[in-house]
Amino acid sequence: MCYHSAMKNSNETFNKAVILGHMFLSKVVCPGDRVIDATMGNGNDTLFLAQLVGPQGKVFSFDVQKQACERTARLLSQHGIQHVDCVQNSHVNMDHTVKDPVKAIVFNLGYLPGSDKSCCTLCSTTLTALKKSLELLLPGGLLLLAIYPGHAEGLREKEQLLSFAARLPQQQYNVFSTEFINHCHHPPLLLGIEKRS
Amino acid sequence: MCYHSAMKNSNETFNKAVILGHMFLSKVVCPGDRVIDATMGNGNDTLFLAQLVGPQGKVFSFDVQKQACERTARLLSQHGIQHVDCVQNSHVNMDHTVKDPVKAIVFNLGYLPGSDKSCCTLCSTTLTALKKSLELLLPGGLLLLAIYPGHAEGLREKEQLLSFAARLPQQQYNVFSTEFINHCHHPPLLLGIEKRS
Repeated sequence: MCYHSAMKNSNETFNKAVILGHMFLSKVVCPGDRVIDATMGNGNDTLFLAQLVGPQGKVFSFDVQKQACERTARLLSQHGIQHVDCVQNSHVNMDHTVKDPVKAIVFNLGYLPGSDKSCCTLCSTTLTALKKSLELLLPGGLLLLAIYPGHAEGLREKEQLLSFAARLPQQQYNVFSTEFINHCHHPPLLLGIEKRS
Repeated sequence: MCYHSAMKNSNETFNKAVILGHMFLSKVVCPGDRVIDATMGNGNDTLFLAQLVGPQGKVFSFDVQKQACERTARLLSQHGIQHVDCVQNSHVNMDHTVKDPVKAIVFNLGYLPGSDKSCCTLCSTTLTALKKSLELLLPGGLLLLAIYPGHAEGLREKEQLLSFAARLPQQQYNVFSTEFINHCHHPPLLLGIEKRS
Protein backbone atom coordinates (compact mmCIF):
# COMPACT_ATOMS: atom_id res chain seq x y z
CA MET A 1 0.00 0.00 0.00
CA CYS A 2 1.45 3.38 -0.97
CA TYR A 3 -0.25 6.20 0.87
CA HIS A 4 1.53 8.89 -1.14
CA SER A 5 0.34 7.70 -4.50
CA ALA A 6 -2.97 6.14 -3.53
CA MET A 7 -4.53 7.90 -0.56
CA LYS A 8 -3.20 11.38 -0.05
CA ASN A 9 -4.00 14.82 -1.44
CA SER A 10 -1.32 16.79 0.41
CA ASN A 11 2.32 15.90 -0.16
CA GLU A 12 2.85 15.99 3.60
CA THR A 13 1.71 13.23 5.94
CA PHE A 14 2.85 14.42 9.35
CA ASN A 15 2.05 18.13 9.46
CA LYS A 16 -1.33 18.25 11.24
CA ALA A 17 -2.99 16.57 14.23
CA VAL A 18 -6.19 16.09 12.20
CA ILE A 19 -4.35 14.30 9.35
CA LEU A 20 -2.60 12.04 11.88
CA GLY A 21 -5.95 11.40 13.57
CA HIS A 22 -7.50 10.31 10.27
CA MET A 23 -4.54 7.96 9.72
CA PHE A 24 -5.13 6.37 13.14
CA LEU A 25 -8.90 6.07 12.55
CA SER A 26 -8.34 4.38 9.20
CA LYS A 27 -6.46 1.63 11.09
CA VAL A 28 -9.30 0.70 13.42
CA VAL A 29 -12.60 1.77 11.83
CA CYS A 30 -14.07 -0.82 9.46
CA PRO A 31 -17.02 -0.81 7.04
CA GLY A 32 -20.21 -1.41 9.04
CA ASP A 33 -18.86 0.11 12.28
CA ARG A 34 -20.77 2.55 14.48
CA VAL A 35 -18.77 5.68 15.44
CA ILE A 36 -19.24 9.10 17.05
CA ASP A 37 -18.07 12.58 16.02
CA ALA A 38 -18.38 14.40 19.35
CA THR A 39 -17.62 17.80 17.80
CA MET A 40 -19.39 18.10 14.44
CA GLY A 41 -18.06 21.58 13.58
CA ASN A 42 -17.92 21.96 9.82
CA GLY A 43 -18.51 18.23 9.36
CA ASN A 44 -15.10 17.25 7.98
CA ASP A 45 -14.47 14.50 10.56
CA THR A 46 -18.11 13.38 10.23
CA LEU A 47 -17.66 13.04 6.46
CA PHE A 48 -14.37 11.14 6.87
CA LEU A 49 -15.93 8.74 9.41
CA ALA A 50 -19.02 8.25 7.21
CA GLN A 51 -16.75 7.26 4.32
CA LEU A 52 -14.82 4.81 6.56
CA VAL A 53 -17.89 3.02 7.95
CA GLY A 54 -19.73 3.07 4.61
CA PRO A 55 -23.52 2.85 4.10
CA GLN A 56 -23.70 -0.31 6.28
CA GLY A 57 -22.21 1.69 9.17
CA LYS A 58 -23.49 4.59 11.25
CA VAL A 59 -22.07 7.94 12.40
CA PHE A 60 -23.58 9.90 15.30
CA SER A 61 -22.42 13.52 15.13
CA PHE A 62 -22.96 16.11 17.89
CA ASP A 63 -22.83 19.89 18.08
CA VAL A 64 -24.72 22.46 20.16
CA GLN A 65 -24.72 24.96 17.30
CA LYS A 66 -27.48 24.99 14.66
CA GLN A 67 -24.95 26.50 12.21
CA ALA A 68 -22.71 23.38 12.53
CA CYS A 69 -25.61 21.00 11.89
CA GLU A 70 -26.67 22.99 8.82
CA ARG A 71 -23.13 23.13 7.37
CA THR A 72 -22.60 19.42 8.00
CA ALA A 73 -25.96 18.39 6.55
CA ARG A 74 -25.08 20.39 3.42
CA LEU A 75 -21.62 18.77 3.17
CA LEU A 76 -23.05 15.24 3.60
CA SER A 77 -25.79 15.77 1.02
CA GLN A 78 -23.16 17.03 -1.45
CA HIS A 79 -21.53 13.58 -1.02
CA GLY A 80 -24.85 11.71 -1.11
CA ILE A 81 -24.30 10.38 2.43
CA GLN A 82 -27.35 9.35 4.45
CA HIS A 83 -25.95 7.10 7.22
CA VAL A 84 -25.22 9.98 9.64
CA ASP A 85 -27.36 11.23 12.52
CA CYS A 86 -26.60 14.93 13.06
CA VAL A 87 -27.70 15.68 16.62
CA GLN A 88 -27.98 19.32 17.77
CA ASN A 89 -26.98 18.65 21.36
CA SER A 90 -23.84 18.80 23.50
CA HIS A 91 -21.49 15.79 23.38
CA VAL A 92 -21.94 15.70 27.15
CA ASN A 93 -25.37 14.16 26.37
CA MET A 94 -24.10 11.67 23.77
CA ASP A 95 -25.33 8.76 25.92
CA HIS A 96 -28.91 10.05 25.56
CA THR A 97 -28.70 9.28 21.82
CA VAL A 98 -26.11 6.49 21.59
CA LYS A 99 -27.01 3.42 23.65
CA ASP A 100 -24.83 0.73 22.06
CA PRO A 101 -21.00 0.63 22.01
CA VAL A 102 -19.02 2.22 19.17
CA LYS A 103 -15.66 1.54 17.47
CA ALA A 104 -14.34 5.12 17.54
CA ILE A 105 -15.09 8.54 19.02
CA VAL A 106 -13.51 11.79 17.80
CA PHE A 107 -13.22 15.14 19.58
CA ASN A 108 -11.87 18.14 17.67
CA LEU A 109 -11.91 20.71 20.48
CA GLY A 110 -12.07 24.50 20.46
CA TYR A 111 -14.58 26.64 18.60
CA LEU A 112 -16.40 26.32 15.30
CA PRO A 113 -14.14 27.80 12.57
CA GLY A 114 -15.55 31.06 11.22
CA SER A 115 -18.08 31.47 14.03
CA ASP A 116 -18.50 33.05 17.46
CA LYS A 117 -15.24 32.27 19.33
CA SER A 118 -17.01 32.70 22.66
CA CYS A 119 -18.81 29.44 21.95
CA CYS A 120 -16.10 26.80 22.46
CA THR A 121 -15.71 23.47 24.21
CA LEU A 122 -15.08 23.66 27.99
CA CYS A 123 -12.83 21.47 30.19
CA SER A 124 -15.62 20.53 32.55
CA THR A 125 -18.06 19.27 29.92
CA THR A 126 -15.27 17.86 27.70
CA LEU A 127 -13.97 15.76 30.63
CA THR A 128 -17.47 14.49 31.42
CA ALA A 129 -18.02 13.65 27.73
CA LEU A 130 -14.63 11.88 27.67
CA LYS A 131 -15.62 9.69 30.64
CA LYS A 132 -18.94 8.81 28.96
CA SER A 133 -17.00 8.08 25.74
CA LEU A 134 -14.79 5.53 27.50
CA GLU A 135 -17.96 3.74 28.64
CA LEU A 136 -19.32 3.66 25.08
CA LEU A 137 -16.06 2.51 23.44
CA LEU A 138 -15.78 -1.11 22.25
CA PRO A 139 -12.71 -3.17 23.21
CA GLY A 140 -10.18 -2.46 20.46
CA GLY A 141 -11.92 0.86 19.88
CA LEU A 142 -10.17 4.22 19.62
CA LEU A 143 -10.94 7.60 21.16
CA LEU A 144 -9.13 10.63 19.69
CA LEU A 145 -8.98 14.20 20.94
CA ALA A 146 -7.39 17.09 19.01
CA ILE A 147 -6.62 19.72 21.66
CA TYR A 148 -5.79 23.37 20.86
CA PRO A 149 -3.74 24.96 23.66
CA GLY A 150 -3.40 28.28 21.80
CA HIS A 151 -6.34 29.85 23.68
CA ALA A 152 -6.86 29.96 27.47
CA GLU A 153 -9.66 27.37 27.70
CA GLY A 154 -7.77 25.10 25.27
CA LEU A 155 -4.70 25.22 27.53
CA ARG A 156 -6.88 24.25 30.52
CA GLU A 157 -8.39 21.41 28.45
CA LYS A 158 -4.89 20.18 27.55
CA GLU A 159 -3.74 20.11 31.19
CA GLN A 160 -6.90 18.49 32.59
CA LEU A 161 -7.38 15.93 29.79
CA LEU A 162 -3.71 14.84 29.80
CA SER A 163 -3.74 14.57 33.59
CA PHE A 164 -6.90 12.42 33.50
CA ALA A 165 -5.77 10.24 30.57
CA ALA A 166 -2.27 9.63 31.97
CA ARG A 167 -3.87 8.02 35.05
CA LEU A 168 -6.00 5.53 33.05
CA PRO A 169 -4.88 1.98 33.94
CA GLN A 170 -2.46 0.45 31.42
CA GLN A 171 -4.22 -2.90 31.88
CA GLN A 172 -7.35 -1.43 30.27
CA TYR A 173 -6.12 1.37 27.99
CA ASN A 174 -3.23 2.42 25.77
CA VAL A 175 -2.98 6.19 26.11
CA PHE A 176 -0.67 8.06 23.73
CA SER A 177 -0.11 11.70 22.86
CA THR A 178 1.48 13.16 19.75
CA GLU A 179 2.88 16.69 19.61
CA PHE A 180 4.49 18.64 16.77
CA ILE A 181 7.50 19.76 18.75
CA ASN A 182 9.08 22.12 16.18
CA HIS A 183 5.87 23.94 15.21
CA CYS A 184 5.24 27.49 16.38
CA HIS A 185 2.01 29.10 17.69
CA HIS A 186 0.93 26.38 20.17
CA PRO A 187 0.28 23.55 17.65
CA PRO A 188 -2.62 21.20 18.46
CA LEU A 189 -1.89 18.05 20.42
CA LEU A 190 -3.44 14.70 19.50
CA LEU A 191 -4.45 12.54 22.46
CA GLY A 192 -5.39 8.92 21.72
CA ILE A 193 -6.97 6.31 23.99
CA GLU A 194 -7.28 2.71 22.78
CA LYS A 195 -9.49 0.42 24.89
CA ARG A 196 -7.61 -2.84 25.18
CA SER A 197 -9.38 -6.07 24.26
CA MET B 1 -9.10 -0.35 4.21
CA CYS B 2 -9.59 -2.20 7.47
CA TYR B 3 -6.32 -2.60 9.32
CA HIS B 4 -7.85 -4.90 11.96
CA SER B 5 -9.10 -7.46 9.50
CA ALA B 6 -6.50 -7.10 6.77
CA MET B 7 -3.14 -5.99 8.12
CA LYS B 8 -2.70 -6.74 11.81
CA ASN B 9 -1.64 -9.74 13.87
CA SER B 10 -2.08 -8.24 17.34
CA ASN B 11 -5.53 -7.06 18.42
CA GLU B 12 -3.95 -3.82 19.65
CA THR B 13 -2.82 -1.05 17.33
CA PHE B 14 -1.50 1.61 19.70
CA ASN B 15 0.48 -0.27 22.36
CA LYS B 16 4.08 -0.05 21.10
CA ALA B 17 6.36 2.59 19.54
CA VAL B 18 7.60 0.04 17.00
CA ILE B 19 4.05 -0.84 15.84
CA LEU B 20 3.23 2.86 15.50
CA GLY B 21 6.50 3.37 13.60
CA HIS B 22 5.59 0.62 11.14
CA MET B 23 2.18 2.28 10.64
CA PHE B 24 3.89 5.59 9.81
CA LEU B 25 6.41 3.94 7.46
CA SER B 26 3.62 2.16 5.59
CA LYS B 27 2.19 5.61 4.76
CA VAL B 28 5.30 6.95 3.05
CA VAL B 29 7.42 4.02 1.82
CA CYS B 30 6.41 2.75 -1.62
CA PRO B 31 7.45 -0.27 -3.71
CA GLY B 32 10.75 0.53 -5.41
CA ASP B 33 11.94 2.97 -2.72
CA ARG B 34 15.43 3.00 -1.21
CA VAL B 35 15.46 3.05 2.63
CA ILE B 36 17.87 2.65 5.57
CA ASP B 37 17.63 0.62 8.78
CA ALA B 38 20.25 2.40 10.88
CA THR B 39 20.04 -0.16 13.71
CA MET B 40 19.74 -3.66 12.25
CA GLY B 41 19.48 -5.48 15.60
CA ASN B 42 17.51 -8.70 15.11
CA GLY B 43 16.43 -7.56 11.64
CA ASN B 44 12.72 -7.06 12.30
CA ASP B 45 12.63 -3.48 10.97
CA THR B 46 14.89 -4.50 8.08
CA LEU B 47 12.45 -7.29 7.14
CA PHE B 48 9.45 -4.94 7.43
CA LEU B 49 11.16 -2.31 5.23
CA ALA B 50 12.24 -4.95 2.70
CA GLN B 51 8.61 -6.09 2.41
CA LEU B 52 7.44 -2.46 1.94
CA VAL B 53 9.93 -1.57 -0.81
CA GLY B 54 9.63 -4.97 -2.54
CA PRO B 55 12.24 -6.61 -4.80
CA GLN B 56 12.42 -3.45 -6.99
CA GLY B 57 13.46 -1.46 -3.89
CA LYS B 58 16.56 -1.53 -1.70
CA VAL B 59 17.24 -1.62 2.05
CA PHE B 60 20.61 -0.66 3.54
CA SER B 61 20.88 -2.06 7.07
CA PHE B 62 23.64 -1.17 9.56
CA ASP B 63 24.96 -2.71 12.77
CA VAL B 64 28.41 -2.82 14.36
CA GLN B 65 27.77 -6.32 15.75
CA LYS B 66 28.54 -9.46 13.72
CA GLN B 67 25.81 -11.26 15.70
CA ALA B 68 23.16 -8.81 14.39
CA CYS B 69 24.26 -9.24 10.78
CA GLU B 70 24.17 -13.05 11.13
CA ARG B 71 20.70 -13.08 12.75
CA THR B 72 19.32 -10.67 10.14
CA ALA B 73 20.83 -12.56 7.18
CA ARG B 74 19.18 -15.71 8.55
CA LEU B 75 15.81 -13.98 8.98
CA LEU B 76 15.91 -12.51 5.47
CA SER B 77 16.87 -15.82 3.84
CA GLN B 78 13.97 -17.50 5.67
CA HIS B 79 11.73 -15.01 3.82
CA GLY B 80 13.60 -15.36 0.52
CA ILE B 81 14.58 -11.69 0.56
CA GLN B 82 17.66 -10.62 -1.42
CA HIS B 83 17.24 -6.84 -1.88
CA VAL B 84 18.94 -5.91 1.43
CA ASP B 85 22.56 -4.86 1.99
CA CYS B 86 23.53 -5.86 5.55
CA VAL B 87 26.52 -3.67 6.42
CA GLN B 88 28.61 -4.49 9.52
CA ASN B 89 29.48 -0.88 10.33
CA SER B 90 28.21 1.90 12.60
CA HIS B 91 25.27 3.98 11.35
CA VAL B 92 27.56 6.97 11.91
CA ASN B 93 29.29 5.83 8.69
CA MET B 94 26.06 5.29 6.68
CA ASP B 95 27.14 7.93 4.17
CA HIS B 96 30.19 5.80 3.26
CA THR B 97 27.79 3.17 1.87
CA VAL B 98 24.69 5.15 0.87
CA LYS B 99 25.40 7.92 -1.63
CA ASP B 100 21.92 8.62 -3.07
CA PRO B 101 18.88 9.96 -1.15
CA VAL B 102 16.41 7.59 0.53
CA LYS B 103 12.68 7.67 1.34
CA ALA B 104 12.94 6.58 4.98
CA ILE B 105 15.48 5.95 7.74
CA VAL B 106 14.75 4.02 10.95
CA PHE B 107 16.62 4.05 14.26
CA ASN B 108 15.60 1.59 16.98
CA LEU B 109 18.01 2.70 19.71
CA GLY B 110 19.45 0.92 22.74
CA TYR B 111 21.17 -2.45 22.76
CA LEU B 112 20.75 -5.66 20.76
CA PRO B 113 18.07 -7.77 22.51
CA GLY B 114 19.58 -10.85 24.14
CA SER B 115 23.16 -9.64 23.80
CA ASP B 116 25.86 -7.69 25.66
CA LYS B 117 24.01 -4.67 27.19
CA SER B 118 27.30 -2.75 27.38
CA CYS B 119 27.17 -2.48 23.59
CA CYS B 120 24.43 0.09 22.98
CA THR B 121 23.90 3.18 20.85
CA LEU B 122 25.45 6.39 22.22
CA CYS B 123 24.10 9.97 22.12
CA SER B 124 27.17 11.37 20.43
CA THR B 125 27.24 8.94 17.50
CA THR B 126 23.43 8.76 17.29
CA LEU B 127 23.23 12.55 16.96
CA THR B 128 25.92 12.56 14.25
CA ALA B 129 24.10 9.74 12.42
CA LEU B 130 20.82 11.68 12.74
CA LYS B 131 22.40 14.76 11.12
CA LYS B 132 23.78 12.63 8.26
CA SER B 133 20.33 11.01 7.92
CA LEU B 134 18.66 14.39 7.41
CA GLU B 135 21.08 15.03 4.55
CA LEU B 136 20.24 11.66 2.93
CA LEU B 137 16.46 11.98 3.32
CA LEU B 138 14.35 12.77 0.22
CA PRO B 139 11.75 15.56 0.36
CA GLY B 140 8.58 13.88 1.63
CA GLY B 141 10.78 11.28 3.31
CA LEU B 142 10.46 10.13 6.92
CA LEU B 143 13.05 9.59 9.64
CA LEU B 144 11.92 7.64 12.73
CA LEU B 145 13.71 7.07 16.03
CA ALA B 146 12.46 4.73 18.77
CA ILE B 147 14.18 5.97 21.95
CA TYR B 148 14.38 3.94 25.18
CA PRO B 149 14.81 6.23 28.22
CA GLY B 150 14.73 3.32 30.69
CA HIS B 151 18.54 3.13 30.87
CA ALA B 152 20.97 5.99 31.57
CA GLU B 153 22.36 6.37 28.03
CA GLY B 154 18.83 6.09 26.61
CA LEU B 155 17.67 8.95 28.83
CA ARG B 156 20.59 11.08 27.58
CA GLU B 157 19.70 10.15 23.98
CA LYS B 158 16.08 11.20 24.60
CA GLU B 159 17.08 14.61 25.99
CA GLN B 160 19.70 15.38 23.33
CA LEU B 161 17.71 14.09 20.34
CA LEU B 162 14.48 15.88 21.38
CA SER B 163 16.40 19.09 22.03
CA PHE B 164 18.06 18.89 18.59
CA ALA B 165 14.89 17.88 16.71
CA ALA B 166 12.69 20.53 18.38
CA ARG B 167 14.99 23.22 16.93
CA LEU B 168 14.74 21.98 13.31
CA PRO B 169 13.07 24.73 11.20
CA GLN B 170 9.35 24.19 10.62
CA GLN B 171 9.77 25.50 7.06
CA GLN B 172 11.88 22.41 6.26
CA TYR B 173 10.71 19.70 8.65
CA ASN B 174 7.67 18.42 10.51
CA VAL B 175 8.96 17.05 13.82
CA PHE B 176 6.57 15.06 16.01
CA SER B 177 6.95 12.89 19.08
CA THR B 178 4.59 10.21 20.38
CA GLU B 179 4.66 8.99 23.97
CA PHE B 180 2.59 6.34 25.75
CA ILE B 181 1.69 8.51 28.71
CA ASN B 182 -0.06 5.87 30.87
CA HIS B 183 2.55 3.13 30.45
CA CYS B 184 4.88 2.24 33.32
CA HIS B 185 8.65 1.47 33.25
CA HIS B 186 9.84 4.34 31.02
CA PRO B 187 8.05 3.36 27.77
CA PRO B 188 9.89 4.07 24.52
CA LEU B 189 9.27 7.36 22.77
CA LEU B 190 8.82 7.60 18.99
CA LEU B 191 10.41 10.66 17.38
CA GLY B 192 9.48 11.38 13.76
CA ILE B 193 11.00 13.87 11.33
CA GLU B 194 9.36 14.42 7.93
CA LYS B 195 11.38 16.41 5.40
CA ARG B 196 8.93 18.81 3.77
CA SER B 197 8.67 18.91 -0.02
